Parts: sequence; structure tokens; C-alpha cells
Amino acid sequence: MKNIVILGSTGSIGTNALEIIRNKREEFKVLALSGHSNYDLLIEQIKEFSPKYVSIGTEVGYNKIVKKFPKLKVFFGREGLKKLGQLLEMDIILISVTGAIGIEATVEAIKLEKRIALANKETMVAGGSYINKLLKKYPKAEIIPVDSEHSAIFQSLLSGKKKDVQNIIITASGGTFRGKSRKDLENIKVSEALKHPNWSMGKKITIDSSTLVNKGLEVIEAHELFGVGYDKIKVIVHPESIVHSLVEFKDGAVIAQLGVTDMKLPIQLAFTYPDRESSLALKHLDLLKIKNLTFEEPNREVFKGLDLAYKAGKAGKSMPTVLNAANEVAVELFMKEEIKFLEIYDIIEEAMKNHTIKDLENLEDILKVDLETRNWVYENFKK
Amino acid sequence: MKNIVILGSTGSIGTNALEIIRNKREEFKVLALSGHSNYDLLIEQIKEFSPKYVSIGTEVGYNKIVKKFPKLKVFFGREGLKKLGQLLEMDIILISVTGAIGIEATVEAIKLEKRIALANKETMVAGGSYINKLLKKYPKAEIIPVDSEHSAIFQSLLSGKKKDVQNIIITASGGTFRGKSRKDLENIKVSEALKHPNWSMGKKITIDSSTLVNKGLEVIEAHELFGVGYDKIKVIVHPESIVHSLVEFKDGAVIAQLGVTDMKLPIQLAFTYPDRESSLALKHLDLLKIKNLTFEEPNREVFKGLDLAYKAGKAGKSMPTVLNAANEVAVELFMKEEIKFLEIYDIIEEAMKNHTIKDLENLEDILKVDLETRNWVYENFKK
Repeated sequence: MKNIVILGSTGSIGTNALEIIRNKREEFKVLALSGHSNYDLLIEQIKEFSPKYVSIGTEVGYNKIVKKFPKLKVFFGREGLKKLGQLLEMDIILISVTGAIGIEATVEAIKLEKRIALANKETMVAGGSYINKLLKKYPKAEIIPVDSEHSAIFQSLLSGKKKDVQNIIITASGGTFRGKSRKDLENIKVSEALKHPNWSMGKKITIDSSTLVNKGLEVIEAHELFGVGYDKIKVIVHPESIVHSLVEFKDGAVIAQLGVTDMKLPIQLAFTYPDRESSLALKHLDLLKIKNLTFEEPNREVFKGLDLAYKAGKAGKSMPTVLNAANEVAVELFMKEEIKFLEIYDIIEEAMKNHTIKDLENLEDILKVDLETRNWVYENFKK
Repeated sequence: MKNIVILGSTGSIGTNALEIIRNKREEFKVLALSGHSNYDLLIEQIKEFSPKYVSIGTEVGYNKIVKKFPKLKVFFGREGLKKLGQLLEMDIILISVTGAIGIEATVEAIKLEKRIALANKETMVAGGSYINKLLKKYPKAEIIPVDSEHSAIFQSLLSGKKKDVQNIIITASGGTFRGKSRKDLENIKVSEALKHPNWSMGKKITIDSSTLVNKGLEVIEAHELFGVGYDKIKVIVHPESIVHSLVEFKDGAVIAQLGVTDMKLPIQLAFTYPDRESSLALKHLDLLKIKNLTFEEPNREVFKGLDLAYKAGKAGKSMPTVLNAANEVAVELFMKEEIKFLEIYDIIEEAMKNHTIKDLENLEDILKVDLETRNWVYENFKK
């Protein structure tokens, strides 16, 4: 029986993870759950999965849950997430909160040398260099990526040795606005940006997907997770989202992972690896129904998110943290209709220009750069 | 430095293997070569690669080579191939002769617990059950498949455990006559059957590809090589021949190997595995140029080779040997214009009906069934 902690259980990844566990009760036990503001759903999840620990992000939610489950150990806020990362009884922690808030629990779980199922991009983007230092210090800790692209790369890498990798090829659906010109995008509405052709995901990541900033973050994440140089990480548009990513080895062999567009597979694999298990929760791919897989070059001139990310990644140190923080605030401002769609790029670019690059020695350094960037963007762009 | 023996060095796979070695002289040394009748090419190869041993299939060739290279150890015919399989100094033997004649050297190399780079389908089709018994007895011997499909499966299987395989999906170009009806095929000429859309291969295998018997043999080979039941081996038509085959795991993850249509990659991998190496001899895939990968169902009613192979495979024991031998003679008769294209299927079907199935305990049993089938087909169908 594996004890699972889920950070962000009320989100898209979290509910999918619970669906995996629901189908494998004999194998997985929910040790702890955390949600931000959706306390109604969190209460339902507590009833169904009987965790020993819970953390919640809002006071109103905290009060409701403490009242409803007097025997349950309930934590609160950022400190609560950190506490869940420190649970000795856990076997696996799924980090599926969005934003830099996911880093702290990851750090704690690494120190305990646990398995981290990582669905939080920001951990490796904002904190990659620090996390990698920690992983060297705690070699038994393991990060299994849950992002569909990085899971595909992780799976494809098993077919060879790291030293023999020629290129990592990350596929991109191209997002909602594939094929559009800059002019088309000038007056995009929030509701338009929230429609994703293939994946049902959270709002923030759907916007990031439409700007290709998401893909850029994935490039940085791949660099940090797999230790591959930026010149060896390519992005290719694959509108069907069936090939989840590919690895090209030195001998020209390209290994790919294909599958339906469903996060449940990479989540379960992060729980069961190195085994793979059948599950009623998992759907299987039928290539005869798909019939056609297409590939094209991304339009980097319109979708500047990709090049901004390469630039931040190559600069390294604190720059990816700035990219990530500036983007988070920019997306928030766009969703509040305070800025236009294309201004997301301007904000990231300006924030990067404004930033003086520095080393990140510890978690405090990361959080400081993160906060400074957020404040700078709010000050300069909030209306 | 690895000592390489190449059986069938004057054929398509053999010359590709020498191209690989030509680019890695510091790593691979040619210990022995064998050719059937093309002694001119074999002489050139001897000059270039200076093997210690050579075997040749014709008397005229034997005499020429003995005269030209008085210090070289020259063997002859079937016995010669067996001798090359017994060379203690070898590290790897590439079995790239076509037909059942490849089995004997494989058996010898297994007994020496060497690595066998296997490009000869018949070894596993006609002799699979016997070879698998031998491999259990000599566990350090290893067979690395060189067929592009089986190499792709071999590579894809590395991404999981054998117990977790759900399906093996073998891709087929569909051959020269994809989309044709039985009526279209009635009066096909030899020259038409020898045109393959994607691969440049030997004549026999090009005909086999056009009948889908080749794909059927690959299904049986996959069954024997990877120990996967016939109900878990699927064939899918993929006209571009870029995805060389796929493995579907229990969790729905489909792992595939993609690459250009060039046998040099699987040959080199069989030499370098578990490493992968760059080489000037190897071309790299550009998905942005390919753009489109398509998949469709094979037409089993027209191309009966597939179902005949499943039938022979499921019957097991000596039946695949019969399928293989009957097909070899049928293709020979077709190439001599003694039978029509569609009669290839009739001959295989009749030979299988006529055969009384039996266990294959040793190499002699295999060769006996092989010879009996050949004779029966000659007697009944040669004009």
C-alpha cells in the first residue's frame, strides 16, 4: 500500500489523480489532501478518501473543514503545504498546485528522499538550479514528471542512455490561436483564450498554452529535469496532441510516447513506475481512428512566448524565475481584463529587461526574486 | 575493438553493415564475411576489410577467391556458414542471409553465447521454438533484432517491463500494391512486384512485402522474439514507413520508434547496444519535412499473407516452418514466371493443409520439414 499526498487535489490534475486512486484502492491510500478555495469539493474528497491530514488556502474553508471534521488534522495556507511535504509516512507526493507556491513542499519532500510526482512547472522553472543541487545532496529522492510532455520524454529516455541523447523534441498543440497573425490577436477576449482544442486544463495553463509561454516553460523545465542543453531542446507543433513528445538519440532513432489526451496516464505512471498497470480509469489510443498525425513549425514571431523562454533559460540563474513570475501576474491581469492579450509578452519582456540577474542559493532567494518581479509588474502594469 | 562476422555481406543488409563499420574502423573489425554468388563484390570487400575468414556459396566463387587470396581461410557453402558461426574470436555475428540457411550459424553462435544481430526472419519463423529452447540453455547469448520493425519493438520495449505489455503494433508500408483489389493483382508482372515505395531491399523480401507475407513472417518473428501472444500482436498500415513499430503498455502508453527508412540504424544499434552512437553513415529524421504520418487498416481479404501467417503461428510447432518454406518456393516460382502472383497464397495455403503438424526438437527436424515442404511445392506447382 502506497501512501499518497496530493497538493492541489481540487484542481484538474488533483481530481484526475483521485480518479486513479479510486480505481486502485487496494494499492494507494490518500494520506493528505490540499485545496485552495474550493472547500466544497475538498469536503467531498475528505469524505470519500478519509485522509489523515488536510491543508486549505482560505480562512473560510479552514473554519468549515475544522468544524465538519473535528478529528482531522487541518493545516492552513503556504505553511500548510510545507507541512504536507514533511509527512514521514508518505511514499509519494503529487505536486499539482500551480505557481511558485509548489516549490516549498517539493523541497521538503526531497529532503525526506521521497518520490515527487511533479505536475507543477514552476518548481523546475523558477527553482530548477536549486532543486537540482538538492537532488544531488539527497540522491534517493526522485522526481517523476507528470506533465504529459515531460512524462513522454521521461518514458522515451528509457530507450537509451542520457549521454546518447541528441535532441529532445517537445510537441505543442499550437494552442487555441494556432495559425493566427499578431493582428488577429490584438483584441482577443479572455473567453476566446480559454478554449483549448485538445486538453481540458486549468485556466492559467490554458492561457499559457495560447501564448506558447506554457511551451516555453516546458522547454526550461525539460532543461532542468533532464540536464539537456537548450540547443538540444526543440519545439514542434503537432495539433492532434497524440505524440506527447519525442527523444532523438545520436544514432538517429527517435523514440516517442503516444497516447490519448488524458493526464491520468502520466499521473498513474508517476505512482506505479517502473511498473505500468492497467486501470479502468485509463483510455487506450486507437491509431486507426486518429488516422493522421501532422507536424509543423511553430510561428515564433507571433507567439513570442517560446523565444522569451529560451532567452530566459539561456540566461539562467534568476532569469527563468522572472519569466515565470512576470507571466503569472500578466495572465492574471489579462484574465481581469486589465491588459490586452499581446501585452502578456510585453510584460514578460520588460520584466526581464528590468531584472539584474543573480545566483539562486536557496529557497528564500527564489521567493524573493519571485515576489520582487510580481510587485514590479503590479506597480508598472496594473490599471 | 569488437570482432564482427557478417553472413551475407554482399546483400542489402550486409553492404549496409559494412558501411557502418567503414565509419567506425576504430571500434569494429571485420573478422569474417560470407557471400553467396556475387564473388566480385565479395573480393572487393575482402580487399577493403581484410577478414581472417570467408565463406562463399558457389564453386566458381570459391576457386576465384582461393586463388586470389592464398593466405585467407576460405570455407564453402552451408558448412562454411556453420563454420563462421563457430568462430570463438567473434563478438557479434550478423545473420543477414535470407532463407532457412541462416538458422544453423545462429544455433552455433548461441552455443558460444555470443551476440547475434539477427536480420534473418526465417531463423525465428521456421526455428523459433527450437531457438528459444536453446536461448534458455545458453542465457548469455543475446539476439538483437535488425529488422526495422523488430528493432523498433526492441527499442520501445525498453520503456517498460515485458509483463506490462498490452499489444505490439507492427507497422506495414502496405507494399507496392496497397489499395489494389484481387482483380487488379491477377496478372501482376514480376517487375511490378519488385518496386517498393519506401525501402530498397532484396528481391525476395520486396515480393514478400507486396504479398504481406513479409508482415506475416514478422508477426511470427515478433511472437518468438518477444514472447507475446498472437492476440497481442497487431498490424497497422503506415504508408510513410517512418514509425517503424509501436508497443502499447497496459496503462495505455504507446511507445514508438521513428526514423528514416534506412537499415543502417538497426544494424548499428545491434552492434552498439546498450549504447547509441552518432555516425556519418546515419541519417536523421526531420518531422517538419515529413509533415504527415498516416495509419490505416490492412486489407486482409486481398492480402491473405497476413492471415495465413497468423494461422500458421497460432498452430505453432512445425506449421510456421511450412509457411516459410512454401512461401520461399512460391516466390521463386513467381519470379521465374511459373506461377501467377495470387498463386503464392494458394501454394502456402495448400502446403499448410497438406502438412501434418509435429514438434520440432532440433535443427534436423526443422530442416526436414523445410525440405519436405519445398519438395512438395516443387512437385505440385512447378511447371
